[in-house]
Amino acid sequence: MTEIRVAVLGASGWMGKVHTMAYETFPHFFGTEGGTARVVTLVDRNPARAQELAARVPGARIVQDWREVIADPEVDLVDICLPDNLHYEVAKAALEAGKHVFCEKPLAESAEEARELADIAKARGLITRVGHGFPRNPVHDLAKEIIDAGEIGEITMFKGCQHVDMYGDPMVPYMWRADGSLAPTGIVGDTGSHVFSFMEFLVGRVTSLIANNIIVTPRRPKIEGLGLGETAELTGSEEWADITNPDASQILCTFENGANGIVDFSRVATGRKFMQTYEIYGTKGSLAYTFDEVNRLRFYTNADPIGRRGYREIDVGPEHPTYAAFLPLPNFALGYNETKIIEAAEVIRSIVSGKAMWPTFETGHHITQIVDACMSSSRQRAWVDIPQS
Amino acid sequence: MTEIRVAVLGASGWMGKVHTMAYETFPHFFGTEGGTARVVTLVDRNPARAQELAARVPGARIVQDWREVIADPEVDLVDICLPDNLHYEVAKAALEAGKHVFCEKPLAESAEEARELADIAKARGLITRVGHGFPRNPVHDLAKEIIDAGEIGEITMFKGCQHVDMYGDPMVPYMWRADGSLAPTGIVGDTGSHVFSFMEFLVGRVTSLIANNIIVTPRRPKIEGLGLGETAELTGSEEWADITNPDASQILCTFENGANGIVDFSRVATGRKFMQTYEIYGTKGSLAYTFDEVNRLRFYTNADPIGRRGYREIDVGPEHPTYAAFLPLPNFALGYNETKIIEAAEVIRSIVSGKAMWPTFETGHHITQIVDACMSSSRQRAWVDIPQS
Amino acid sequence: MTEIRVAVLGASGWMGKVHTMAYETFPHFFGTEGGTARVVTLVDRNPARAQELAARVPGARIVQDWREVIADPEVDLVDICLPDNLHYEVAKAALEAGKHVFCEKPLAESAEEARELADIAKARGLITRVGHGFPRNPVHDLAKEIIDAGEIGEITMFKGCQHVDMYGDPMVPYMWRADGSLAPTGIVGDTGSHVFSFMEFLVGRVTSLIANNIIVTPRRPKIEGLGLGETAELTGSEEWADITNPDASQILCTFENGANGIVDFSRVATGRKFMQTYEIYGTKGSLAYTFDEVNRLRFYTNADPIGRRGYREIDVGPEHPTYAAFLPLPNFALGYNETKIIEAAEVIRSIVSGKAMWPTFETGHHITQIVDACMSSSRQRAWVDIPQS
Amino acid sequence: MTEIRVAVLGASGWMGKVHTMAYETFPHFFGTEGGTARVVTLVDRNPARAQELAARVPGARIVQDWREVIADPEVDLVDICLPDNLHYEVAKAALEAGKHVFCEKPLAESAEEARELADIAKARGLITRVGHGFPRNPVHDLAKEIIDAGEIGEITMFKGCQHVDMYGDPMVPYMWRADGSLAPTGIVGDTGSHVFSFMEFLVGRVTSLIANNIIVTPRRPKIEGLGLGETAELTGSEEWADITNPDASQILCTFENGANGIVDFSRVATGRKFMQTYEIYGTKGSLAYTFDEVNRLRFYTNADPIGRRGYREIDVGPEHPTYAAFLPLPNFALGYNETKIIEAAEVIRSIVSGKAMWPTFETGHHITQIVDACMSSSRQRAWVDIPQS
Repeated sequence: MTEIRVAVLGASGWMGKVHTMAYETFPHFFGTEGGTARVVTLVDRNPARAQELAARVPGARIVQDWREVIADPEVDLVDICLPDNLHYEVAKAALEAGKHVFCEKPLAESAEEARELADIAKARGLITRVGHGFPRNPVHDLAKEIIDAGEIGEITMFKGCQHVDMYGDPMVPYMWRADGSLAPTGIVGDTGSHVFSFMEFLVGRVTSLIANNIIVTPRRPKIEGLGLGETAELTGSEEWADITNPDASQILCTFENGANGIVDFSRVATGRKFMQTYEIYGTKGSLAYTFDEVNRLRFYTNADPIGRRGYREIDVGPEHPTYAAFLPLPNFALGYNETKIIEAAEVIRSIVSGKAMWPTFETGHHITQIVDACMSSSRQRAWVDIPQS
Repeated sequence: MTEIRVAVLGASGWMGKVHTMAYETFPHFFGTEGGTARVVTLVDRNPARAQELAARVPGARIVQDWREVIADPEVDLVDICLPDNLHYEVAKAALEAGKHVFCEKPLAESAEEARELADIAKARGLITRVGHGFPRNPVHDLAKEIIDAGEIGEITMFKGCQHVDMYGDPMVPYMWRADGSLAPTGIVGDTGSHVFSFMEFLVGRVTSLIANNIIVTPRRPKIEGLGLGETAELTGSEEWADITNPDASQILCTFENGANGIVDFSRVATGRKFMQTYEIYGTKGSLAYTFDEVNRLRFYTNADPIGRRGYREIDVGPEHPTYAAFLPLPNFALGYNETKIIEAAEVIRSIVSGKAMWPTFETGHHITQIVDACMSSSRQRAWVDIPQS
Repeated sequence: MTEIRVAVLGASGWMGKVHTMAYETFPHFFGTEGGTARVVTLVDRNPARAQELAARVPGARIVQDWREVIADPEVDLVDICLPDNLHYEVAKAALEAGKHVFCEKPLAESAEEARELADIAKARGLITRVGHGFPRNPVHDLAKEIIDAGEIGEITMFKGCQHVDMYGDPMVPYMWRADGSLAPTGIVGDTGSHVFSFMEFLVGRVTSLIANNIIVTPRRPKIEGLGLGETAELTGSEEWADITNPDASQILCTFENGANGIVDFSRVATGRKFMQTYEIYGTKGSLAYTFDEVNRLRFYTNADPIGRRGYREIDVGPEHPTYAAFLPLPNFALGYNETKIIEAAEVIRSIVSGKAMWPTFETGHHITQIVDACMSSSRQRAWVDIPQS
Repeated sequence: MTEIRVAVLGASGWMGKVHTMAYETFPHFFGTEGGTARVVTLVDRNPARAQELAARVPGARIVQDWREVIADPEVDLVDICLPDNLHYEVAKAALEAGKHVFCEKPLAESAEEARELADIAKARGLITRVGHGFPRNPVHDLAKEIIDAGEIGEITMFKGCQHVDMYGDPMVPYMWRADGSLAPTGIVGDTGSHVFSFMEFLVGRVTSLIANNIIVTPRRPKIEGLGLGETAELTGSEEWADITNPDASQILCTFENGANGIVDFSRVATGRKFMQTYEIYGTKGSLAYTFDEVNRLRFYTNADPIGRRGYREIDVGPEHPTYAAFLPLPNFALGYNETKIIEAAEVIRSIVSGKAMWPTFETGHHITQIVDACMSSSRQRAWVDIPQS
């Protein structure tokens, strides 16, 4: 049994907490044979949070500067839950210091940066992983198994979406996520990259696309002290801020294998608390998924006799090892945070075994390419090609 | 009470039967005050069907040539259920003979033809109607009522689709519908026009679009004697035919009111017996519809208090007069053919009252413009504008 | 081609209109080979409605007294859409006059009466039919086909319900349906009999049961002039009426074939516009139905391989002749009123061919036995047996 | 911050693992202010598992005999995940030794035993909790909030079920769960108690009931080495074992507040991987829940205007503190195991604060009374009353 020493950067945020929990927890579900993790360092810029962090993880070092971790020979794995615009810099430093890296998505702010990170890791033989957790729900392993076995034939069409209602109401105030200087790709990188990770996992690489990026609400009031989802009674004296990155994006695309795709995502989808769906059509069958029934896949096959054909509601179950780890019965509710436990178990197993697992920084590169192409296509209002490198 | 004398052209096909039934039946549901209809002539090219037609509609004339109807002063309304490529010629002749016209969709094979028909009708003060029946399901009157009352605010996004599985299997043999010389717009005019009718009814006119028309299966075997949905055991000696019109189309668009749209339709959606959905997002709420629950609308409103917000499943009910005509309780299953009874009642009432009702040939023109734009955009692989005339 | 002459009794009510429409309409869907119908007489007690009836059915006699129909040698089939408490008397008179009879459900107010009617019909060789229309939706023929082929094995459990919200609100005023002297069995006969018809059609006869009949709201205000579903602002001076028949009933039962059942129905199910469901479990598979998706059946089979098992959503389609008659595609919405067209076509075909079709008065007798047993079991608060005669 | 020292008994089973994980994990979600837990002892009868347990929980004592824990002054909370037939004995010993107790459900094998345990705990002022975890999903707090606020009015009806397919196939071999000498109440205590916990949480106490307990498959083959869900190819030389406890139970009941209930549960529901539903009808609204959409509640209210009424799909969200602890967005998938984290956090907070939280042993007593009544009612085939003590 090998123990991997982990530093979690950005430890007080939601992802930081969940990653920390995941390292501590996965052996209860996956055992200790594939290796275990010890969270040795928690990084949070704000010293006021140090005490709470220490209480949560007895024995861990609490530090304010991520550079301390890079320099620390007692750290094997750097886990990056920092703001998006720090991912590239920190990941690069960690890789160059010879650390394995698990970086929350998006990997970087441009395909060039992502390419560089993947190349450094490859050159040094380090394990990398991007936090595209959604496809690690075992229900998508079931989807992949069905596709790889040829049960839906050749894939001809992919349709997917991810919608939230963060900004459906025009009176929801301005926040940094809507500022193109802080978050240049807006919804495209933030939410779109999740859909792109399903495309990458289940269909293959995207070769060309046309995107229509849309700013639905061009100005929002600047109001302090409002929680997420709260709206404002305006006093008339508010400042207003321009919204400078996309609220929504609608995309047509082609895949390397000849399939076509139609995809959209939105943060202004009034009423959609969290909507994530895909449909995959093939020459012999099809698949359909909605996050509303989080562990269930709909599968249609022409192998069923006429008169008995219909979408089957298959609940992923203990036939799949990453499901069996958690629950003894199908349809027993494997939650979102638990896919993070799967990711933690897999990244540790990768390091111990030396075998990379999807999604690596190479995957992150492909997804960043798609994000870049959406931005450029929408500016040009034209189809753009994606280099297959 | 006024009786309108109707000739049904193409009386033996599905639509011909349903239209004939609808004229005879609507007074049971809508009463006789708005006028009644008498089917005086049935037209079918095939004389072998005359006897069955006579048995079905005692008292009606049975003729083989539609020109006899045009010349007949005893006919007030010409109802066209003929093949698509005859719509323009027959409708034009009927209008020029001073007949009111109810024409099954699509109205014509080009926007120019549709424009001409609408202009003739307008010049002569005749009642016209296109057979876009889906939006006449009263559940869509409920949607329109909610939109018109401002309950979802300004519309920002429309998403819609219509999918069938006629051609999902590449071994389903060639049929005339897949021949670009007989049906130049393929799925775009055939199925897309239904989605476009919802857009026209609920959102407004389309101003620009980009389409990706796709031929998924480029060649199919030519095999005689197979029924719809049957596949072929190939002998090796089949002829193969090229598929020369679109199997699917994926579209981004903009609307006159500033909303954006994303739409797709397909005849190769393996597993989708008949799928028709739309979602309409606004600044204060949203609507969602799926044909699977044919008389139910999902409605979300920000007017609900936080913690009690969610899509409401509203079953259209007897509050709506065209529902109350048929059924005393909500969620009691108003079927597709019954929307044709609504259409028949409305076209007769239009003629008797002199007041046109949606969808007229003007509507048909708008929809044909969208079809044309899809064909041209996909050829050019570029956004195209639609003239607002 | 034989034409059957029909008299519709109670022609102005909803069922009267729909039956009349159905006789006129079915040849458009089912052709004329199995016979046709001519509605020769419409009976309505109220002379004020005669003119509207004459306008709706040109050529029919309009009479006020049902006895005229019984005496009329020009009537072959008596179709009874009268109030429930007249069913027995009118059906008996019609049978004794040698007429075939189609009687809306419930057949009679006691098992003894139903028995007597079935016996008279049998002795005279007349065709009988009870208007249990729900199971004639072809989706239930699909269910029966699956059961009869052994695809779900031996049936072990039946679960069913039917709920409406007519009376969920205690301020909905008193109406005659809630008066035990006018409608002695309340919800049990009114709504329960629909569920019992599914049990009879799909599972078999009931051998014993225990029922809990419940009056949820013991008194309601008497208020004139309110429509269905409207509630009252009370003035304080209303009269109140006692509710004297069941608002709801909850039932456990056993079937002849050894299966067990659990069933409930209610008119006080706040929120349920119309809810009708069943689930049938067997040793090899199961079926589930909900009226929300009116033409769709869910089918589960252990014959599917492990890892691919799940309920299939099967849309009944043109493989089934009574579906093909109406629509060329599955999932295209066959409505409730259209099952009445199927019933009309079947009763005419029965008369012309001399072959009875389910549900006959014998079926009506079985269902009435179950209703009687519910009333008696609930009074005794004990299991009761049902004689298998 | 107070640390509670916990011993987990039965640490290698599914529940043992999840409880252990939950004590370690909850501070990441709920913070440390309400107290923390340290798992000091793990009990497993099988010494072969000691090493794996030690690896999973570094620092914990690993023992084979639960009596060591009772005698250990360093243990504050005894957490019982042992086989059902040990619950009473161990809980009693722990309470008498002055330990707080968290006992997995069912609390005991008879109402008398449960009563005794509740009385001891009360006399000694100890915190008790039964592991009825399903209702601790925050979606049910939302249901309770709606009910308690009077938003559905007076509750009139409860309908609930829980179905699994463990034993749908008669060839699934015999296992101890089906042996009445080892598990006298069969499905009633095993699965029914979950439904009873919802009734207790949301509606109130049951006053009388009638149950029909059913053995669907009276004999099963005895075959070694088969996994859960696997069936047997019989050789003809198998031994067969009698099934001597209920496979299913169907129940009618009355509640203290006047509502009526209908409930069933089954382990022979072919096709139901895990089905758990409830519907609660009131005089002003209603609620409906299905585990298929694990964090979503359907809510109907007559306060909505006519024409806009319908079930709202409300996703429990961060308005609810036990949801906010885990996820920042509604409909983001809170899993089953995470409700165990809520339970662990609550039991620790109870001990630290001295304030008991639902469900205590008193709750466990009420639920055990219902189980007992089902067994006795089914034997007598008669309604039985439940003492309200």
